[in-house]
Amino acid sequence: MKTGIPETDKPRIVIVGCGFGGLQLAKALPNKDVQIVMIDKHNYHTFQPLLYQVSTAGLEADSIAYPIRKIFKGQKNFIFRWCEVKKINSDKNEIETSVGNLNYDYLVIATGTTTNFFGIEGLAEKAMPMKTVTEALNLRSLVLQNFEKALLTSDIREQEALMTFAIVGGGPTGVELAGALCELKNHVLPADYPELDLRKMRVILVESGKEVLQNMLPENQVKSLSYLKELGTEVWLDVRVTKYDGRVVYTAGGKEISTYNLIWTAGVKGQVISGLPEESAIRGRYVCNEINQVHSFENIFAIGDVALQQHEEKYPKGHPQVAPVAMQQGQLLAKNILRLIQQKPLMPFSYFDKGSMATIGRNKAVVQVNNMKFGGFLGWLVWMGLHLLMLVGFRNKIVVLINWIWNYINYDRNIRLIIRPYEQKQNNSAPIKAKELSITQS
Amino acid sequence: MKTGIPETDKPRIVIVGCGFGGLQLAKALPNKDVQIVMIDKHNYHTFQPLLYQVSTAGLEADSIAYPIRKIFKGQKNFIFRWCEVKKINSDKNEIETSVGNLNYDYLVIATGTTTNFFGIEGLAEKAMPMKTVTEALNLRSLVLQNFEKALLTSDIREQEALMTFAIVGGGPTGVELAGALCELKNHVLPADYPELDLRKMRVILVESGKEVLQNMLPENQVKSLSYLKELGTEVWLDVRVTKYDGRVVYTAGGKEISTYNLIWTAGVKGQVISGLPEESAIRGRYVCNEINQVHSFENIFAIGDVALQQHEEKYPKGHPQVAPVAMQQGQLLAKNILRLIQQKPLMPFSYFDKGSMATIGRNKAVVQVNNMKFGGFLGWLVWMGLHLLMLVGFRNKIVVLINWIWNYINYDRNIRLIIRPYEQKQNNSAPIKAKELSITQS
Repeated sequence: MKTGIPETDKPRIVIVGCGFGGLQLAKALPNKDVQIVMIDKHNYHTFQPLLYQVSTAGLEADSIAYPIRKIFKGQKNFIFRWCEVKKINSDKNEIETSVGNLNYDYLVIATGTTTNFFGIEGLAEKAMPMKTVTEALNLRSLVLQNFEKALLTSDIREQEALMTFAIVGGGPTGVELAGALCELKNHVLPADYPELDLRKMRVILVESGKEVLQNMLPENQVKSLSYLKELGTEVWLDVRVTKYDGRVVYTAGGKEISTYNLIWTAGVKGQVISGLPEESAIRGRYVCNEINQVHSFENIFAIGDVALQQHEEKYPKGHPQVAPVAMQQGQLLAKNILRLIQQKPLMPFSYFDKGSMATIGRNKAVVQVNNMKFGGFLGWLVWMGLHLLMLVGFRNKIVVLINWIWNYINYDRNIRLIIRPYEQKQNNSAPIKAKELSITQS
Repeated sequence: MKTGIPETDKPRIVIVGCGFGGLQLAKALPNKDVQIVMIDKHNYHTFQPLLYQVSTAGLEADSIAYPIRKIFKGQKNFIFRWCEVKKINSDKNEIETSVGNLNYDYLVIATGTTTNFFGIEGLAEKAMPMKTVTEALNLRSLVLQNFEKALLTSDIREQEALMTFAIVGGGPTGVELAGALCELKNHVLPADYPELDLRKMRVILVESGKEVLQNMLPENQVKSLSYLKELGTEVWLDVRVTKYDGRVVYTAGGKEISTYNLIWTAGVKGQVISGLPEESAIRGRYVCNEINQVHSFENIFAIGDVALQQHEEKYPKGHPQVAPVAMQQGQLLAKNILRLIQQKPLMPFSYFDKGSMATIGRNKAVVQVNNMKFGGFLGWLVWMGLHLLMLVGFRNKIVVLINWIWNYINYDRNIRLIIRPYEQKQNNSAPIKAKELSITQS
């Protein structure tokens, strides 16, 4: 099979993955005398920070997904192929993809991460991850399906298990999802299901550490805890999940949760591509120097969540796996590859941490910029404004804004649609999963 | 299994299907002393007239689908169950559903139609229908996937087959879809696929009759033909498809079309539920009297596309299978069921034809109201205005309007997303189809 990519005399930069890092890199190279080949297994860029709103019926998929071809419309040195990478043959400067082999002069691995279940029993088969648009849509279907099912049983325990939501992982995703589920409980579902006693709906956030939002300042951790509790989330700290059988979540301390809804946001692992020597990656992240060159290679780079740089004193274990790191690395790498071509000296990466934030339901968020911190309504406005700014595409910004205004005024979540019913076997079983992730794990 | 529907002393009206007919019927009965049980295999109402825009990346699913529970929020005599009807046991006044059996005092069959392939070889397996949101999303994926595939081949015939779209059926759906595909060809895809020669893209509309839009006035038929040709659609009239093997469409006259994209909008059949005597339905439509009572039953009714009423002189073969008939029948039946309960005389149905219309690309439409007819830009504005009016939900109206304005100004279709890649075997093969349509055909 042929990729159909025209041969060229110009240096070819192959970028694997159009997440925040790959996107910034390619956008920083318009009109440059290179051929950019972008490869992604989706034909769209996903704005992952808002996936949880797709799951909770607040936004439709098109609001947070943006066609890659549209982003690069008119960028003449840009070629996109919708495919999956199978292997890197670094000796031949070649990658194998699902649509044929391709040579590169420079290869940039920007594949990001996928959910890490840490091999815990039952999770890969029965827990719901939330890292892709499809997974978010599956979760939305499951939530609604289980409410429909709750109407059909007179067994109270069964009904409670259908209406209980266990979210594992107290990072921003888990916290924001817990908040959004509580909003559904408080404002939307009672009108949809007058036959059900919505007080029975439980949202439990399980975190193995001693606090939520571990990367935040202690004051913000405390504040978000109180926001969560106000909304009705039960927060279980210092609790480690050991097993899930599809109905009961077992934990190390012996506490159990009866639930058909286990959402796993407690870990990620880098999507490492096979073919490079084993020592190139540690725990699913490519070992990179300060230029983002992968260990022992001159023309292979890794950026974003899948890269591990340890040259900065402040980040001895590598940078946090967040969008700003990926974006800054992508922007710098664009310059460095051009410098490499021109044989100019390269510039080391240095992360400029602009701060972090999380929103917890209506009118509430925690935000910190350096040592400045604020929350409440102001934090919530800042959270919304920055997310709108970061969203790709003007139409998407408008559609998201209108949905937010609508939802805010009406205490509503409009998109309570079960378009494709979620069936556990189809979407979560081993064979399909292996197919979806043909970017193999190291 | 139990439906969980509370027993009641009030008359129970069971409505199967929340299309245009079922929706109007249930909406016309608020605060009445009855128990309404609505059953649908989707948890949303679908605005079918705009499905073709979902297929062609102009709208996202949430714009034209509206949660049923939300429509009836606060209507206290209304109960919804997301399930499929298996059988009617008229002797027991009972239906069997996928969530258990249910008794009725009055049963209203408003199941609408599904695609009719007329048993033509290869169609059920290989052609794309477009009657549901899922089918429209599948079609969107297929269109985009085949353009991605066209990039990969150097075989010109193969490439042309990937870029050729055959639409069978010259009714409003086929005509509007052809127009929308031509718009994609003329304005959107060239920028997305600079590597492809978009002049090779063909849109062929195949109609077995001698004109398109057979229910319209001859002048409008001629006008729409010229609109279609202006846009670049090849219109094949008086051509009957005899076979499709997934790559070649065969026709009665011997002409063939090489295409991987065959979209079938050439026929529908009523979704008849099993259990009633055979003579209740003719060619997939329930034989009804002027009160919409199904032949020989007092308390079983059919409305909309699945009903066949022949009492009106103007419609000896039954009413046209369009939304306004269903809506008017639903509204009248609400009154008639109440009259039946109160033992008052019933009112016969009489169809008030408000006219019909179809849009063909940017700025163009044909509209007729009685014998008045107009087209062009005015027709197009009227088409848009009326569709916005008919859409359920204020937020949906806004989101659709914004997308239309955006697309109009920018000559764009934003939603070019392959969220769930279409795989023929998964979606179109016999076993899955059987499951999706457990409302069985007579």
